[in-house]
Amino acid sequence: MNERRNFLKKTAIAGAGIAVVPSVTFGMNTSKKSDLVRVGIIGVGLRGTNHLNNLLRRDDVVVTAICDVDSNRIDLALEAIAKAGKKKPKVFGKNDKDYLNLLELVDVDAVVISTPWLWHTRMAVDSMRAGKYTGLEVSAANTLEECWDLVNTHEETGSHLMILENVNYRRDVLAVLNMVKQNVFGELLHFTCGYQHDLRGVKFNDGKTAYGKGVEFGDKGISESAWRTQHSLLRNADVYPTHGLGPVAVMADVNRGNRFVSLTSHATKAIGLNKYIVDNGGENHPNAKLKWKQGDIITSTIETSNGETIIVTHNVNTPHPYSLGFKVQGVQGLTDFDYHTQRIHVEGTTKGHGWEDMDAWFEKYDHPLWKKFGEGATEAGHGGIDFFVMNAFIESAKENVAPPMDAYDAAAWSAVTPLSEVSIENNGEPQDFPDFTRGNWIKRKPYNWMKNTY
Amino acid sequence: MNERRNFLKKTAIAGAGIAVVPSVTFGMNTSKKSDLVRVGIIGVGLRGTNHLNNLLRRDDVVVTAICDVDSNRIDLALEAIAKAGKKKPKVFGKNDKDYLNLLELVDVDAVVISTPWLWHTRMAVDSMRAGKYTGLEVSAANTLEECWDLVNTHEETGSHLMILENVNYRRDVLAVLNMVKQNVFGELLHFTCGYQHDLRGVKFNDGKTAYGKGVEFGDKGISESAWRTQHSLLRNADVYPTHGLGPVAVMADVNRGNRFVSLTSHATKAIGLNKYIVDNGGENHPNAKLKWKQGDIITSTIETSNGETIIVTHNVNTPHPYSLGFKVQGVQGLTDFDYHTQRIHVEGTTKGHGWEDMDAWFEKYDHPLWKKFGEGATEAGHGGIDFFVMNAFIESAKENVAPPMDAYDAAAWSAVTPLSEVSIENNGEPQDFPDFTRGNWIKRKPYNWMKNTY
Repeated sequence: MNERRNFLKKTAIAGAGIAVVPSVTFGMNTSKKSDLVRVGIIGVGLRGTNHLNNLLRRDDVVVTAICDVDSNRIDLALEAIAKAGKKKPKVFGKNDKDYLNLLELVDVDAVVISTPWLWHTRMAVDSMRAGKYTGLEVSAANTLEECWDLVNTHEETGSHLMILENVNYRRDVLAVLNMVKQNVFGELLHFTCGYQHDLRGVKFNDGKTAYGKGVEFGDKGISESAWRTQHSLLRNADVYPTHGLGPVAVMADVNRGNRFVSLTSHATKAIGLNKYIVDNGGENHPNAKLKWKQGDIITSTIETSNGETIIVTHNVNTPHPYSLGFKVQGVQGLTDFDYHTQRIHVEGTTKGHGWEDMDAWFEKYDHPLWKKFGEGATEAGHGGIDFFVMNAFIESAKENVAPPMDAYDAAAWSAVTPLSEVSIENNGEPQDFPDFTRGNWIKRKPYNWMKNTY
Repeated sequence: MNERRNFLKKTAIAGAGIAVVPSVTFGMNTSKKSDLVRVGIIGVGLRGTNHLNNLLRRDDVVVTAICDVDSNRIDLALEAIAKAGKKKPKVFGKNDKDYLNLLELVDVDAVVISTPWLWHTRMAVDSMRAGKYTGLEVSAANTLEECWDLVNTHEETGSHLMILENVNYRRDVLAVLNMVKQNVFGELLHFTCGYQHDLRGVKFNDGKTAYGKGVEFGDKGISESAWRTQHSLLRNADVYPTHGLGPVAVMADVNRGNRFVSLTSHATKAIGLNKYIVDNGGENHPNAKLKWKQGDIITSTIETSNGETIIVTHNVNTPHPYSLGFKVQGVQGLTDFDYHTQRIHVEGTTKGHGWEDMDAWFEKYDHPLWKKFGEGATEAGHGGIDFFVMNAFIESAKENVAPPMDAYDAAAWSAVTPLSEVSIENNGEPQDFPDFTRGNWIKRKPYNWMKNTY
């Protein structure tokens, strides 16, 4: 089989056997504004708790406040904080708007938002208005207006926003970014990426276990099924573009010398979720009568101002192996990589006309961050990437500087959702991306992704 | 490496060691109109000579006439015919229109056309008007009007046209078609395909050797570079869609219960050919000043009336491994296959959430034609597929019945060229496919691809 994930596995295996978390040496920077970041966490569901646990390991962070409307999740979070020997934070969540009271706290410097999608932008906007350094989970916005809200609020308040796209920190992704920066592929031409993840067991459950059982959602479901599934029912759009697009956008210097210009999107028919409900709940289950709007496979093609094309796939309602399907192609060579496939062809280096295995390339171009922190990072979640994204957030917050992935990125990447929706509704009609930088992409410099601190 | 091509290799290896061509037993059909087909060949360049050689092996074919404007190619063809112990055919080619004299012969029942693209439709139209059973190399047409010419002439004359798309007969393609027919993947949703072939060494040569040397084309080039390269200079379009799209169209029953409805196309910038000229001919070579119109990577997304999407890639101007990049995805599972990758995932059959190797699947679903003729076919060219496509042509001609891939298919598949050109020129604007069947796709039945005769 094509299951060649040595490069990815190596790290995971190295971490898996370590019972005691190795201490992580953080980069020293004399210009930083603060040695300690006081963090408020809005949303301590599965995702927020993962961030919480990563923050609890750090001695440069104090979690001073948490917020969740689900008291069970608050209890679990408090338990984790106590177990880590940390001070009990202030607790919020008595209603939907209680997060605003968290934002009023003076002992909160930075805020991490991991809530259902419809809350993302409004909470991030409120957080920036409250002067907090804001970290926002993906996807950042649901509409074009919300994309603008993120950008406008950042510009009006001066508060920074970081979109917490963890895939940008995957070891293979950062190694390929390193190759791109070192011009291995020559001038870039074409990318593929996307979110190909069988989410049927996430979108439905039995109201008791989060994943894999039952065909309920919404009021009768729990965890993600309680809020995520409704998007599939009513929106025919790529509702989750950033895991694939974030890494590609950074490789292509989008918003920094390049930008997304337009896209077209096409959706297949929607039959996967109905089949799942019928297969697992029977044809007489009430949910078997629902008409799902979201096409099972959605393909968007983005044109950039630099003349590249990017194919973004959203493929979550049918059985298939997990893949973000990355391909990076330049005039000199290309790579095709994800969990199940890692291969490369570079003219003048690769022997013959076929593919070359990437192991040696990954070793050679391993990113400085992974070389430095890789061993300790792997327990952080998702194979280590959750350590790196939170590390970048905290270190950027300490210096109060623009994060690696900022409000303009959050807006441009998330804009694929509303733009794909309109394009699909209009038979693939091209949709222009707003220029969220207001023309400044022509002079904005690429972020220094290759440093070894964060 | 992911170079798993056992299934494809096995056949090639079996054939490669056989010095004497094994005799092929052709299917017997009592209803056939003729036991012998008298064939005229228009164009005996590299491609036409390959067809000639396959025809010379058959005892149900007599090649009665050949035509080429290049007398060197005529000499080589006559030599091959003599060597095979066959009677010398009538020879044509004293000028561009001499093929019309070949078409007037009464001892020509069927015509095989393998000429430069700009001659394809006009020769096929003339051939059908002359009452010949017509085989036409890919791609069949250059404009939408030419697509209609093929259909209208077929309907007006009653003469059959077969587009000679050999990839439809690849062993893996036919095995996957068999899986589709047996509903392995459930209701179909999505396909990818395309032509990813580094043609730089085909588009340019030194005027002496056909492939791989020099940076000349047009008047100073020979073989394909003499005519093919000009299309890259002046057309920003997917000029070669059928190798990928033919197999997918058959799997999706296009023109037979389904049809292509619309497409959008996007092209990257065009830098690959200029780089090749500069790298191999120097920046002062006259051809280094040319502005190439054809984007290096062109991506088209087709919507079908059945709610599927098909991604078609044209990627021929940069270094990369050869691939037609087939993916077939249904609601129950999917396969991802080509020379370098063969993998499958079928819910309820594949263990776990990953990919399964396809070897056992290919064995199980091996097509009856390959089981029967595979051993003898492999010397025919392109791993055996050239035997099968010519076999289908001759057997269909003997019965004077509609071929597996007819005028409507030739038109619909080739229409991608002009439609992609207009879409690219208009920033990805969707283009509607003409319905070349004039509505008859709703009642046309799928061709029986699963029989074991041809």
